Amino acid sequence: MDRNIQAIISQMTIEEKASLCSGLNMWQTKAVERVGIPSIVMTDGPHGLRKQENPGDMSSKSVPATCFPSGAALASSWDRHLIQEVGRALGEECQAEDVQIILGPAVNIKRSPLCGRNFEYFSEDPFLASEMGTHHVLGVQEQGVGTSVKHFAANNQETLRNSINTIVDARTLNEIYLRAFEGTISKGDAWTVMCAYNLVNGEFCSENEYLLTDVLKKRWGHQGFVMTDWGAINERVKGLQAGLELEMPYSGPDRDQMIVDAVKSGKMDEAVLDQAVERLLNVIFKTYDARKEGFTYDKQEHHVLARRTAAECMVLLKNEDSLLPLDPKQSVAVIGAFAAKPRYQGGGSSHISPTQLDHALDSIREIAGDGVGFAEGYHLNQDVVDEALITEAVQLAAGKDAAIIFAGLPDSFESEGFDRKHLDMPESHCELIRRVAEVQPNTIVVLSNGAPVVMPWLDSAKAILEGYLGGQAGGGAAADILFGKVNPSGKLAETFPVSLKQTPAYLNFPGGKSEVNYGEGLFVGYRYYEAKEEQPLFPFGYGLSYTSFTYENIRLSKEVMKDSDTVEIIVTVRNTGNRTGKEIVQLYVQPLDSTVVRPVKELKGFEKVELQAGESTEVNFTLDKRSFAYFNTEIHDWFAETGSYDIVVGSSSVATPLRATIKVVSTMIPFCKVTRNTKFYELLAIPETAEFAEKAMNDSLESIKHMGALFAESMGDGGLLLLFEEVAKWKKYDGLRSMISFFGSGMSEADFQKLIDDLNQKLGL
Amino acid sequence: MDRNIQAIISQMTIEEKASLCSGLNMWQTKAVERVGIPSIVMTDGPHGLRKQENPGDMSSKSVPATCFPSGAALASSWDRHLIQEVGRALGEECQAEDVQIILGPAVNIKRSPLCGRNFEYFSEDPFLASEMGTHHVLGVQEQGVGTSVKHFAANNQETLRNSINTIVDARTLNEIYLRAFEGTISKGDAWTVMCAYNLVNGEFCSENEYLLTDVLKKRWGHQGFVMTDWGAINERVKGLQAGLELEMPYSGPDRDQMIVDAVKSGKMDEAVLDQAVERLLNVIFKTYDARKEGFTYDKQEHHVLARRTAAECMVLLKNEDSLLPLDPKQSVAVIGAFAAKPRYQGGGSSHISPTQLDHALDSIREIAGDGVGFAEGYHLNQDVVDEALITEAVQLAAGKDAAIIFAGLPDSFESEGFDRKHLDMPESHCELIRRVAEVQPNTIVVLSNGAPVVMPWLDSAKAILEGYLGGQAGGGAAADILFGKVNPSGKLAETFPVSLKQTPAYLNFPGGKSEVNYGEGLFVGYRYYEAKEEQPLFPFGYGLSYTSFTYENIRLSKEVMKDSDTVEIIVTVRNTGNRTGKEIVQLYVQPLDSTVVRPVKELKGFEKVELQAGESTEVNFTLDKRSFAYFNTEIHDWFAETGSYDIVVGSSSVATPLRATIKVVSTMIPFCKVTRNTKFYELLAIPETAEFAEKAMNDSLESIKHMGALFAESMGDGGLLLLFEEVAKWKKYDGLRSMISFFGSGMSEADFQKLIDDLNQKLGL
Repeated sequence: MDRNIQAIISQMTIEEKASLCSGLNMWQTKAVERVGIPSIVMTDGPHGLRKQENPGDMSSKSVPATCFPSGAALASSWDRHLIQEVGRALGEECQAEDVQIILGPAVNIKRSPLCGRNFEYFSEDPFLASEMGTHHVLGVQEQGVGTSVKHFAANNQETLRNSINTIVDARTLNEIYLRAFEGTISKGDAWTVMCAYNLVNGEFCSENEYLLTDVLKKRWGHQGFVMTDWGAINERVKGLQAGLELEMPYSGPDRDQMIVDAVKSGKMDEAVLDQAVERLLNVIFKTYDARKEGFTYDKQEHHVLARRTAAECMVLLKNEDSLLPLDPKQSVAVIGAFAAKPRYQGGGSSHISPTQLDHALDSIREIAGDGVGFAEGYHLNQDVVDEALITEAVQLAAGKDAAIIFAGLPDSFESEGFDRKHLDMPESHCELIRRVAEVQPNTIVVLSNGAPVVMPWLDSAKAILEGYLGGQAGGGAAADILFGKVNPSGKLAETFPVSLKQTPAYLNFPGGKSEVNYGEGLFVGYRYYEAKEEQPLFPFGYGLSYTSFTYENIRLSKEVMKDSDTVEIIVTVRNTGNRTGKEIVQLYVQPLDSTVVRPVKELKGFEKVELQAGESTEVNFTLDKRSFAYFNTEIHDWFAETGSYDIVVGSSSVATPLRATIKVVSTMIPFCKVTRNTKFYELLAIPETAEFAEKAMNDSLESIKHMGALFAESMGDGGLLLLFEEVAKWKKYDGLRSMISFFGSGMSEADFQKLIDDLNQKLGL
Repeated sequence: MDRNIQAIISQMTIEEKASLCSGLNMWQTKAVERVGIPSIVMTDGPHGLRKQENPGDMSSKSVPATCFPSGAALASSWDRHLIQEVGRALGEECQAEDVQIILGPAVNIKRSPLCGRNFEYFSEDPFLASEMGTHHVLGVQEQGVGTSVKHFAANNQETLRNSINTIVDARTLNEIYLRAFEGTISKGDAWTVMCAYNLVNGEFCSENEYLLTDVLKKRWGHQGFVMTDWGAINERVKGLQAGLELEMPYSGPDRDQMIVDAVKSGKMDEAVLDQAVERLLNVIFKTYDARKEGFTYDKQEHHVLARRTAAECMVLLKNEDSLLPLDPKQSVAVIGAFAAKPRYQGGGSSHISPTQLDHALDSIREIAGDGVGFAEGYHLNQDVVDEALITEAVQLAAGKDAAIIFAGLPDSFESEGFDRKHLDMPESHCELIRRVAEVQPNTIVVLSNGAPVVMPWLDSAKAILEGYLGGQAGGGAAADILFGKVNPSGKLAETFPVSLKQTPAYLNFPGGKSEVNYGEGLFVGYRYYEAKEEQPLFPFGYGLSYTSFTYENIRLSKEVMKDSDTVEIIVTVRNTGNRTGKEIVQLYVQPLDSTVVRPVKELKGFEKVELQAGESTEVNFTLDKRSFAYFNTEIHDWFAETGSYDIVVGSSSVATPLRATIKVVSTMIPFCKVTRNTKFYELLAIPETAEFAEKAMNDSLESIKHMGALFAESMGDGGLLLLFEEVAKWKKYDGLRSMISFFGSGMSEADFQKLIDDLNQKLGL
């Protein structure tokens, strides 16, 4: 429908406009019927619909919806098309339930494996999280249903999330914690954004002008609106001015009135309110007009999609002696309460009433026969080692061809709302695995958990399948993989550490009672393990298949690339095994001579390809400036430094057989003005000033050598000689100021200032 | 002499006053004869005098001076009296050479063992560095000679020291990197301070108003002047305004003129210049008037002091089977070029022309007889494994009672001016140790090095004596310890890591080419190893003796202490061995329930006591607020939070047999105003607001429980239940704002604001 939003706004009273800036109730926006503005409905997501039957009644039940695998699982598929397909299905369910916006995706970075909400989040890597979030959004919004990317931003723990102040430096914030938001907004065009509860660098996210206006609206060009996480409002008017449009849920008449008062008293320009209302109406009308009345979806079809999705997400961590896949004719024992009562989703706002629920035990019996025996092995809701249950399991397992143990984390171990204190599984699960393995060498562990666990029982399991929280069809998917109906193809979207103390944020998680300092900076996830030379339990990007792949022949479309250009990378991947399988081909960029601290390498491309036995294919990647850039805090922009970079391609972050070098040439000036402390190397990298810098640097070097010689004379055995040699070696990193300092040329301050002015003129600064 | 400095200043022209703000030449200040202002002489230190014969001639030779052990060694003595005695000796040498200020002590913290200048610095611990620096200053200044505490501040690496921007958070800066400066200035009353080359948080130290004025002059009350490190000036007028009085060395007429111009043009108030001149004259006259013409000192006496000092500094790291001390009658082989050509001091500005030089080989022969054989073992100036030299050493060692190998780091491995790239000793030294140990089980290694090394040969040495850079009498001191003339009593003032990658700053040292981020924050030295649960090679505070000590009976003068009060701690230490020895008793404070992130424990007291065999003594400590406080960045002051603290006493950071708990009660309000986000716990800790906070918090809890019950109803299996339980558990860390939010009581914004106003009134804020 064609709407004239400006005309509508011009007809509205201040009170009507202010009323739109907070919800009607728990889940709806307010209507303004006088001017034809409808109310729209939002519900929790992200991997399924949590719609309460009556949006105005907090205690009303949730309607049934398909529970897809949660975010941690979805990202392990590394499959953009699949994520988008799931998004489409979510959009369909929204249309069927008359929901206009589904809250999600949740793209926060996994800073610590302890974060209680990691199961909802995609990855420790911002590029992977960005791609997953983008395709989730594209899928949902294809159906005319809005998304709300959350939780913006740097909400990486549950502990004190309402009040904690996240201290994070600008590079880390932009390179790690904002990157996935940027993608879902720039590439995915997410219609709304949900701001987080916490503070970032001293300002609540709900009134953080840097985040909401400078970055989101101005730099990324977001056209939709920002809503609070439920109850995340602080000062209403300050929030509105900072770029927060919608407070959720309704909290009484007070805060709308504060907006009215601010406009009427002249404290806030009415244009700020008008701008907010325009952004709100853009989305409200877009979603309202896209409603499909009477829409229905096929619940069974969505369940099948959930099963296919879960199977794509599971990660085969270990498979000694090719124990998996099992032959349905083999005798197996199924052990562990989770096989009959699955843990398939997490606690909190994302909790779904599923349309149906697969149980792994049933699914296995469907494949391997009803005779498959089952033993509970542990209690579902209490962590006590029950000798009777274990003995039963051990007896069942003994003499079989294999035992499949379903284990992991119970609900009480992880949820929205609190963080884990450790990475342990219940001792009753660990002991069960060890004891079964004593009688059964072919012990397979299938894990249900939202985030990494440590595995003191690692050596007891010949095969390990990481099932994550696989959604309502996770049980069926596990069976599909165990018996080879599906060849596993998931890879870890996060590092599994050996121990908690090995993890990057160990010193600073969850911080103090007021603030948390992201002291590890850029070194999150594999960026930490690689820089610190730590061997994790299982590395980022790792996952096994029932077949094998080789990597050959990396080709670059050019060896030197301007930052305004792109480069194509082609590699050949071959299925060298004897069954069809999918491989996730990963491309990392490794700076070789950066002047800023950078991670060893960073993921900048990935493709999931399916290959038949013996088949090979070419996999193409396109890299651009951003693939090489870091966030330069002086110019507040991405800057790809002139220099050499290795392009590294392989099957995981630690298995990268292909490598090629490219030289990138910057066309940007990474500073705003030449100053007395601009460094020689900065000017050497700019064609217009390179010659000057070379000469000035050499003159300065001569002075140093002269002074060094003088001192050397006096020092007998040359105590200062090494010092002068080293100063000379690092000269290019000195500021221009060194031309007039102690070791300088004797140039006057006036001449020096003129020289700087000339350089600025030459560069047009 | 009685001087009227104000009167002198009032007679001076602007030009004369400006002229005082930079040096006359390399080592002197300018005189203004017209008004009777003399020139004074400064020379390098810190552990000896580096006075050039002609202060105006950079190439003139240094006069002979006693080379005392360098800072790293001195701190290992943990002996305040001894450091002060060394300071007095330095002061005497200054008087004899007509030097008014000796540049030092250097109290920078050892952030990474790689820092090339660590040999000059005291410790990784700010309290220990503070005590050492203080007593150095007290000793020198007793002689009427000034000191210059350096390098102020956060100059913890040599790489790019002229241009690197140190990024460090305010708590870390104050708690770790400024603490030792504070001590030497507040307790030691150091007359001058030398600012560092680098930038701190974006401002050059030479013009950093926060450091030079807010902290140094205002908070610490420094009355003397600040000089630049040589050539560390950036913008002269900005520096003066920020609190930099003296530019060194002379760099031409330009910058004095800039000061004149700034005053004459009205850009800078003349009072700023007058204030600087007053500070300069205070010190110039004080030192000038304290000159002792014709003063001489006994070089031999100072050499004896240097030998006694060096022996107090050496740290016995290993002594299996009580191999040491050796009996002079035993047959020993002395191996290693360092035994004959000692490495006893570091390179750079601290390099001394010693008055005489002990060689360990000679000193050993004096004790054990001229027949003691010697083999060079390795080349002094190149790191190549020379089979002939090793074979000679092995042949000499075989069949002897013991072999003493002198090894460590050659000059080229560490110096002012550059940082080490690794922690390795030359392979020629390591291989020598391994090979000698193959034929000689009683192998003793004596190390000469300015900073920690890794020891892949650890198992080859039955005894290890860390000799550091022991000064001109270090060789004699080593012999004294090896043969038991002195019982070793030094303990490590820094952690020896297992490997480089284990060290705290590994991810961020030496940073990029423009800035270095102190991402490890407070976790420097043992604070890191303890928090990260890492086992180092040798821990902070560790060192062996030829006797043994036990710790008994910790007593506190009170169990509850107001922060305005002090507490006495008494422990009993007993020499349980069979010879006289000295023990360094260490006291650490461990916060038990802090609301901010703190190190596991921190050194807050130490005493070195001498005990005869079987003797015991009581050791007393007094702790005050600062012993428990952290630096609160909201009130910019030290704050000892109400709570429990363990007092932990022992012989090293990892051997702490005594422990007692004290409750500290704060009398301070740790914020400036009550705001809508002041937290319940903050108000609970203040008597005037505790009752209100208790009630408000409980009301808020009721609301949460009510809402939780509503949701639980709708969620079937209670997906949100855990979330609500956890929110309730952490309620006291929520802001007052939660009273009016989503989960709140429905209070109006107006009533809420009134409530906050009332609280501020009640607290007088």
